[in-house]
Amino acid sequence: MGVKELPLVQVTGVECCAPLALEPLAEADAEVLSERFAALGDPVRLRLVSLLANAGAVCVCDLTEPVGRSQGTVSHHLKVLSKAGLVTSEKRGRNIWYSIVPSALESLRAALVTR
Amino acid sequence: MGVKELPLVQVTGVECCAPLALEPLAEADAEVLSERFAALGDPVRLRLVSLLANAGAVCVCDLTEPVGRSQGTVSHHLKVLSKAGLVTSEKRGRNIWYSIVPSALESLRAALVTR
Repeated sequence: MGVKELPLVQVTGVECCAPLALEPLAEADAEVLSERFAALGDPVRLRLVSLLANAGAVCVCDLTEPVGRSQGTVSHHLKVLSKAGLVTSEKRGRNIWYSIVPSALESLRAALVTR
Repeated sequence: MGVKELPLVQVTGVECCAPLALEPLAEADAEVLSERFAALGDPVRLRLVSLLANAGAVCVCDLTEPVGRSQGTVSHHLKVLSKAGLVTSEKRGRNIWYSIVPSALESLRAALVTR
């Protein structure tokens, strides 16, 4: 499949010696977002998020095999992700189903935009 | 016997009850990306990244005031970001200037796309 390259548009509006707009993220936002990023700072959790982001709601029983970890380990990682607000869970019958929180992932994507 | 190449087809799985394509990120990718996410798991580092993402190259001497930390602390955090491949540095005269690595941020954004 061919990939069409779009022309890169250089943002040029920078006059000589334009003062830098040194406005970082607000501290309160940085606190919340950095906790979410920290939760993704583990390969198993990141793989779980990638699964859920692509698959919708998934029973915890179907998450162990793709990441090659025990149900106990997977449940622990899902709790960390849940605490960070990245996933939600719902009890269906005897199983717990997990879903991604799209707005949480979007908040992280937005923090990674470059000028 | 020749090998017939099949066209790459986007798996959209929108039919009723489509089986879940439980294909997480490859382990090797998850290792690299989770290290980058972990580097962002600190509010000061996240604020430094947001500054650099918006400002282009910035002298380390101009990064202390916006995040309200000493130069030593800022330098430490920049080293962590540099080790994770998120920023690069360049010596100009007596100062070190830091820039974001746009492709690294893009790799993180791509890992956060929801279906």
